[in-house]
Amino acid sequence: MSREITIALDAMGGARAPEMVLRGAEIALQRHPGLRFMIFGEENRLRPLLAKLPQLAAAVELHHTSEVVMDDDKPSVALRSGRQSSMRLAIDAVAEGLADGVVSAGNTGALMAMAKFALKTLPGIDRPAIASFFPTQRGESVMLDLGANVECDAENLVQFALLGDAFARSVLGLIEPTVGLLNVGSEDQKGNDTVRAASLRLRSTASPIRFYGFIEGDDIPAGTVDVVVTDGFTGNVAVKTAEGTAKLFTEFMSAAFRHSLSARIGYLFARNALRKLRMRLDPRRYNGAVFLGLCGIAVKSHGSTDSLGFAHAVGVAVDMTLNGFLDKIRVDLARLDAAPAAPQSAAL
Amino acid sequence: MSREITIALDAMGGARAPEMVLRGAEIALQRHPGLRFMIFGEENRLRPLLAKLPQLAAAVELHHTSEVVMDDDKPSVALRSGRQSSMRLAIDAVAEGLADGVVSAGNTGALMAMAKFALKTLPGIDRPAIASFFPTQRGESVMLDLGANVECDAENLVQFALLGDAFARSVLGLIEPTVGLLNVGSEDQKGNDTVRAASLRLRSTASPIRFYGFIEGDDIPAGTVDVVVTDGFTGNVAVKTAEGTAKLFTEFMSAAFRHSLSARIGYLFARNALRKLRMRLDPRRYNGAVFLGLCGIAVKSHGSTDSLGFAHAVGVAVDMTLNGFLDKIRVDLARLDAAPAAPQSAAL
Repeated sequence: MSREITIALDAMGGARAPEMVLRGAEIALQRHPGLRFMIFGEENRLRPLLAKLPQLAAAVELHHTSEVVMDDDKPSVALRSGRQSSMRLAIDAVAEGLADGVVSAGNTGALMAMAKFALKTLPGIDRPAIASFFPTQRGESVMLDLGANVECDAENLVQFALLGDAFARSVLGLIEPTVGLLNVGSEDQKGNDTVRAASLRLRSTASPIRFYGFIEGDDIPAGTVDVVVTDGFTGNVAVKTAEGTAKLFTEFMSAAFRHSLSARIGYLFARNALRKLRMRLDPRRYNGAVFLGLCGIAVKSHGSTDSLGFAHAVGVAVDMTLNGFLDKIRVDLARLDAAPAAPQSAAL
Repeated sequence: MSREITIALDAMGGARAPEMVLRGAEIALQRHPGLRFMIFGEENRLRPLLAKLPQLAAAVELHHTSEVVMDDDKPSVALRSGRQSSMRLAIDAVAEGLADGVVSAGNTGALMAMAKFALKTLPGIDRPAIASFFPTQRGESVMLDLGANVECDAENLVQFALLGDAFARSVLGLIEPTVGLLNVGSEDQKGNDTVRAASLRLRSTASPIRFYGFIEGDDIPAGTVDVVVTDGFTGNVAVKTAEGTAKLFTEFMSAAFRHSLSARIGYLFARNALRKLRMRLDPRRYNGAVFLGLCGIAVKSHGSTDSLGFAHAVGVAVDMTLNGFLDKIRVDLARLDAAPAAPQSAAL
């Protein structure tokens, strides 16, 4: 790395924390030598673990706190009473400029509430969104919002499009990603007023992104576009439906291979190829839901992930820092702002 | 069959029509001996095909029409100027009591507009919905609405729940199906006002269905409930996302088996088991999207299906007739109507 990057970690969030967090940090360190960590959590539990990870220990600044946000804490409660929690102190490290990004596998709602409060939203962004990437027939794509905003207006969707575009450029390394708006059909008159108004704005020449137009649900796994934009209700349902369908397929396939002696023999021969298939679709590779639209980098790891998945989430925060995500989105927002407003009649 | 059933067919709808329609009807006839068909379409094209299908020819009443609804016709245009089309005349046969149900693989929007106009909605139903069934880890489930109503209120969702329940009892043969409302989380406070209000109504003791509560996207393929209720926007995106993910998996798997000589040998051994897996997930088995909420049975076949898929769509219409779908839903609607309204305070 050309510059020193520091990631703040909430060591106490996630089902297998804190061990999973520290082992994940070590894997991330191997991938990004020179990386530094500020780790927040219970010193008594962290010290013995760090003693077993000497390479990591040398890259870590440990900050003791005994307070932890629980998975069932309401976001409002966590925000009020969790000021000394490992999650909040890790976020504060980013807010104070001591760390470049924060990663937590803890309570999503609490993390979003705290990150919004402590990091603030970017000028020009009304509401942050949750984004993630996923495998497609063409490679990888990004989708947002995955559940931060259950109801969205056209302006929110336009802002999500810009955030997703800058994210895809930072993390997927694309020069000019294509952006699609999720709808129930591809024709202009399809859908509701919100998606039609957002489409009109994104089609305008002032828009700094490469807008593909409307896409449908099957375009998500097909990889028709690099960035899928939708409201948090639809996005949440779509991503969980895709995960569930992948699981259904995996279980049906396992059942098929247990079906007969011949199938079991077939499995032995195809084992290597099937292992590669599993690796290609390994959810740990796609771990790391990013809160976009904040004045800082905040990544939410899946709560049930292991150290390999956590390392991927750390990697997302590192990539966003290295590739200047925050600068990219600020430039885009300024370009959109400077553009003349769309004529009123076109919005009808 | 204990009674004679007549299905009206639009012979001209679908990419491979009319041959696919007639061959599909013949397969359906083999499965349901005694079935009768009223077939609407171009006599010059249908006669030579029927001459090759003598068994079917004996069960068919042919009605000539030269007018056809095209795939790109707007529903409003088709409704006004397609009064002599094969699609419309097939629907009219149901409206006039000459046929028990209609099946078409033509333009979905036109079919819905014509069916609504000619068959009318059931008393107590504000808007018809599109339903279909799909494979799950537990067997098969039903989902609606899949796109007829892009925007829905709580009352629409409650009505969809009743329609889905009666459909699952008629077609899946379930005694007391469980019904879930699609949301972004399972807790009571999750989601938007619409789903929360619908949930309160469905939880009331007056509701004639077995309401499970909120479900999430991954519950759809898991088969957590027998009937998934959602608005037409979310339902359309979810079903297409699941289809696309299944396709992604199939292509990744094919690629894995082509990966090496060893994998190819493995495929040979596992071939039979994998064929069974493909059959289990064959989209033709789940062909037939049903328009629920009308005073008549109308089934939309996928436009690109083949005769086997079309036969399944005909089978759905036959099952709905045989198992008294229309009577079941009328009883449920009467029970809901007779129930005292939920106290206003509970809706807050």
